[in-house]
Amino acid sequence: MKVRIHISLKPGVLDPQGRAVHHALESLGFGGVEDVRVGRLIELDVADETSDEALSQMCEKLLANTVIENYRIEKVAA
Amino acid sequence: MKVRIHISLKPGVLDPQGRAVHHALESLGFGGVEDVRVGRLIELDVADETSDEALSQMCEKLLANTVIENYRIEKVAA
Repeated sequence: MKVRIHISLKPGVLDPQGRAVHHALESLGFGGVEDVRVGRLIELDVADETSDEALSQMCEKLLANTVIENYRIEKVAA
Repeated sequence: MKVRIHISLKPGVLDPQGRAVHHALESLGFGGVEDVRVGRLIELDVADETSDEALSQMCEKLLANTVIENYRIEKVAA
């Protein structure tokens, strides 16, 4: 089973990487960009019997820093 | 308009970060994980009139390294 974990910074948390990308886009002449936030995308290939609970635990314990980040678990049809 | 850019390594490209995460998950006792790949998730807030062409150009020129990475553009309903 393929699972995608989307990890993004919580609203209000400063994102220097996103600001750098925003700046770079403007320098390249791309107008109309209002905001940029950079997060992570973790693609897991796990056994089909893996429970939702186990996936949440993986995020809480290792993949995401829940103090400053939100995560979203998306199961991808195989 | 909110746009999410999903950037992942092309198949076959070594992913040391993914291997480290895989290893760490196993050390924490999570079984059944077969593969882990780590990519990036870039959330853009752009003007509504931004064309698909401009979004592709942003990816090609700055956001993704198309030699080793694939990107996927997803428009999110506002």
